Amino acid sequence: MSQQDLLEIPDAADAFRKRWREIGRLSQELRDVEVCNAFFEDSTRTRVSFELAAKRLGARTVSISASGTSVSKGEPLLDTLHTVVAMGVDIVVVRHRGSGTAACLAGQLDACLINAGDGEHEHPTQGLLDLLTLRDAWQGRFEGRRLAIIGDIAHSRVARSAIFGLATLGTAVTVAGPATLAPAGIERLGCGVARGVEEALEDADAVMAIRIQRERMEGGLLSLTGEYARVWGIREDRVRLMKPGAVVLHPGPMNRGVEIASDVADGERSAILDQVESGVAVRCAVLTRCAAAMAKA
Amino acid sequence: MSQQDLLEIPDAADAFRKRWREIGRLSQELRDVEVCNAFFEDSTRTRVSFELAAKRLGARTVSISASGTSVSKGEPLLDTLHTVVAMGVDIVVVRHRGSGTAACLAGQLDACLINAGDGEHEHPTQGLLDLLTLRDAWQGRFEGRRLAIIGDIAHSRVARSAIFGLATLGTAVTVAGPATLAPAGIERLGCGVARGVEEALEDADAVMAIRIQRERMEGGLLSLTGEYARVWGIREDRVRLMKPGAVVLHPGPMNRGVEIASDVADGERSAILDQVESGVAVRCAVLTRCAAAMAKA
Amino acid sequence: MSQQDLLEIPDAADAFRKRWREIGRLSQELRDVEVCNAFFEDSTRTRVSFELAAKRLGARTVSISASGTSVSKGEPLLDTLHTVVAMGVDIVVVRHRGSGTAACLAGQLDACLINAGDGEHEHPTQGLLDLLTLRDAWQGRFEGRRLAIIGDIAHSRVARSAIFGLATLGTAVTVAGPATLAPAGIERLGCGVARGVEEALEDADAVMAIRIQRERMEGGLLSLTGEYARVWGIREDRVRLMKPGAVVLHPGPMNRGVEIASDVADGERSAILDQVESGVAVRCAVLTRCAAAMAKA
Repeated sequence: MSQQDLLEIPDAADAFRKRWREIGRLSQELRDVEVCNAFFEDSTRTRVSFELAAKRLGARTVSISASGTSVSKGEPLLDTLHTVVAMGVDIVVVRHRGSGTAACLAGQLDACLINAGDGEHEHPTQGLLDLLTLRDAWQGRFEGRRLAIIGDIAHSRVARSAIFGLATLGTAVTVAGPATLAPAGIERLGCGVARGVEEALEDADAVMAIRIQRERMEGGLLSLTGEYARVWGIREDRVRLMKPGAVVLHPGPMNRGVEIASDVADGERSAILDQVESGVAVRCAVLTRCAAAMAKA
Repeated sequence: MSQQDLLEIPDAADAFRKRWREIGRLSQELRDVEVCNAFFEDSTRTRVSFELAAKRLGARTVSISASGTSVSKGEPLLDTLHTVVAMGVDIVVVRHRGSGTAACLAGQLDACLINAGDGEHEHPTQGLLDLLTLRDAWQGRFEGRRLAIIGDIAHSRVARSAIFGLATLGTAVTVAGPATLAPAGIERLGCGVARGVEEALEDADAVMAIRIQRERMEGGLLSLTGEYARVWGIREDRVRLMKPGAVVLHPGPMNRGVEIASDVADGERSAILDQVESGVAVRCAVLTRCAAAMAKA
Repeated sequence: MSQQDLLEIPDAADAFRKRWREIGRLSQELRDVEVCNAFFEDSTRTRVSFELAAKRLGARTVSISASGTSVSKGEPLLDTLHTVVAMGVDIVVVRHRGSGTAACLAGQLDACLINAGDGEHEHPTQGLLDLLTLRDAWQGRFEGRRLAIIGDIAHSRVARSAIFGLATLGTAVTVAGPATLAPAGIERLGCGVARGVEEALEDADAVMAIRIQRERMEGGLLSLTGEYARVWGIREDRVRLMKPGAVVLHPGPMNRGVEIASDVADGERSAILDQVESGVAVRCAVLTRCAAAMAKA
C-alpha cells in the first residue's frame, strides 16, 4: 500500500461511516458483486465486519471455513480458492494462520483477494481502521504524533500493520513488551523501543494494547497473567502519563485484567468501540475499491 | 411481559401467519434492520426460525456461535455483543446456556435484545408460540382450560415460560414428572402437581411433553429410557384420557419412544408441526416489535 | 431421471451459464422461494455451489449442518426436515452419509427434495455437471464416445452417477481401479472393465479421476499413496494415450500427486474448473425445475 492508499481508503471509509450514521443505509453499489469470506482461522469481529460491509452494499455473500470444508479433507488452499473463483465469485476475503499466505496467493487468482489477517504477518484492514480511529482522535494530523504499542510485538500482525501505516504517515511509534516477545531488529520497521510501559506511555498521543495469546503463556514464554498485568498492563495510573486527550486502542478480543484494565477499557479515553465502527467502514471502502479494480480489469 | 403483551404478540403473529399462508410473501418492513443471531448453544429450530422470520421481513442477518468466534478465545459475552452492536446491528437474538443471561444483558446494550433461551430459565418466544398454538386449538379461550405438562419440569425453560404465560391468561396448569426432577416449590409458579401422568391428563385440554435430556439420564437422575417411557411417556391410551379435541404439544427435538410415542407424535391430535409454523410467525411479531421500539428510542 | 431429463437439464443449465457469462446477473425467478441447505456431511464445493445458485436467482437460503443442530442431539433426520418444511421452506437440499437417504426421504416431505450426495449411492447434480462439461468438450454428441473412469469405483457416488447418465445417453464407459476397490457386478451398471489404466485410457474421449479417500488407505484397503500414483495415477504420459482433444475430469477435492498429477490437473486438457462452473449452472437449472414443480402441485 502506498502513502496515497493510506490516505484515500480512510477518506472513503469516513464517507461510508458518515452516510451510515446519518441515514442508516448505504447505496447498493455492490449489487451484482459476490464476496466469499474464507476464514480458515477463528474470528468473530473481522468476519462479521466484512459480512456486514458486503451486505450493506448489496453484495451476495458466501462463507467457507476450515471445518466442514474440503480444507479439512486436505485440499490445498489454492485449489479451494480456485474452485470458489471458478463458481463466479468476484472477491475473496482470506484469513489464514500461515504467515505470508496472502502474498503467496496474490496474482494467482482471477478475483480480487483481500487479506483479513495472515498468521503473524499482516492484517491490513486492521491497520486501516486504526488509522481512521486515530485520525478522528488526532484531528487528521499524523505527523508529530506518538503512538505507544504495548505487548507481544513479535507475534502480532496487528502491531506490524499499525507500525507500517503510521510510520509511513509520519507518526513516531514506540513499542514496549516482555523481552521474550520482542522481535529482533524491530527498529528496522521504523519504530523506537522503550524499556518499560511507563517510558513508552509518557507524553504519548495514543496507546495500543496488544492482545496476549494465552496459548503462548502456557507455553512458558510469558509469566503468569497476574504478573503480566502488573508489569505491562494498561492501567488507569499509566494512562494518565499520556497527553491530555490521548486515546486507548485494543484490537479485541480483550483479556480484561491482563493486557488492559477493565476501567480503562470502558473509560472515557477508550476508542475501542470506535475502532469496531471504523472497521466496518474501512471494509466497505476496501470492498468497493476491489470491485472497481475488477471492473476495470 | 404483561398480560397485554401475551395477547398482542400472538395477535400480530396470527396476522403474519395468515398473510404468509395466503400469499407466501411478507411486506419488507425490516428492510433496513440488521439482526445478529448469537447462538452460543446448539439449536436448529429456534435459530432457523428467527433467521427465516428476519429474512422474510427483509432484514439483513449475520450469525455468531460459540465455536469459530472470539467466545472460544475466552472473550466475555458482553464484550462480544458490544462489538456486534458497535458494528451497527439493531437486534441481537441470544441463546446461551447460562440461566439468567438475558436478564444480565438487558439494558446493557444499545440494541434490542431478544432472549432465545437462557439455560434452565426462560424461552419466551417458545412460550408465545405455545400460546398461539393453543389459542387455535382452543378457539381463543384460555380461561377454564387445563394444560398438563409432563416431564423434567425442574430443568425446563420451555415449561417455565409456558406456565408463566398460561397462568397469566387464566389457564390451569398441572405438572407431573419424576420426583427427582420436580422443582421444589413448583406450586408458587401457579400450577398444580399431579402424582402420575394419568391423573394429569384426565380431562385436560392439552398436554405438553417435555424433552428428556439424555445427558441427565446418564448422570443417574433418571432411570433407563424404557422405564421412563413406561411411566411418563405420552402414549395413545393416555392421550385418550383427555377431553375430545385436546391436543398434544412438544417443543422438539423429540425423543420418539421416550417422552412421546411415535404414533402420538404423528397422530391426529398432534399440534407439533403447528407449533413450528407458529414459531416463525411469533418471531416475525417479536422482531417487528423490537424494530418499532428501537425506532421510537 | 429419464433420458429427457438428462438432455433438458443440461440445456437449461447451459442457458443460465451463458446469461451469467454475458451479463453477470440472472433473473430473480426464485424471489419468493426458500431453500434450506441441509449438509450433514462436510462439503465446500457442493454447498457453496447450491448456495450461490439459489442466491443468484433471488431465493432466500438457510443452512443446517450436523454440528450445532438438533441432529447432534439425536433427532431423526426426517423430524429435522419435517420441522424445516413446517417453517415454510420450499426446497431442501440434502447431503448425508447414509447411502439411500434421499430415496428414503422422497415423498415423505411436503417440499421439493434435492439429493446433493447420499453416501456411496448417488450424486445426481454431479452427474449432470459432468454431462454438461462433456457435452461442451464433445460438441454435443454422446454416442460413439468413450469415457474412462479410474479409481475407487466401488465407493464412489460420483462414478455411479456418471455411469448412469452417460450409459443412458449412449456413451461407452470403461472403469479401472484396484481390485480391492472394484465393485462386484460393476458390468451390470452398463460399463466395461479394463485391467489397467493404460488399457482404459487408450483412445478414450475423456477420463475421470476418482478421488482416493485417504481414510480407506489408512484402513489398509489401499497401498501407500505413492504406490497408488504409480499404478493408477492420471499422468501426462497416460493422458497422451487418449484421443486428441480428450479432456480430464475430477470431481474435487483433488489429491494432487496421488490420483492425478499436478501438471495434468493444471494442464490444457483439464476441464476441472469447467466442471465447477457448470456445477453452479446445473444447480440453477435443478432449483428452478423444483420450484416449477412445487408451483404446479
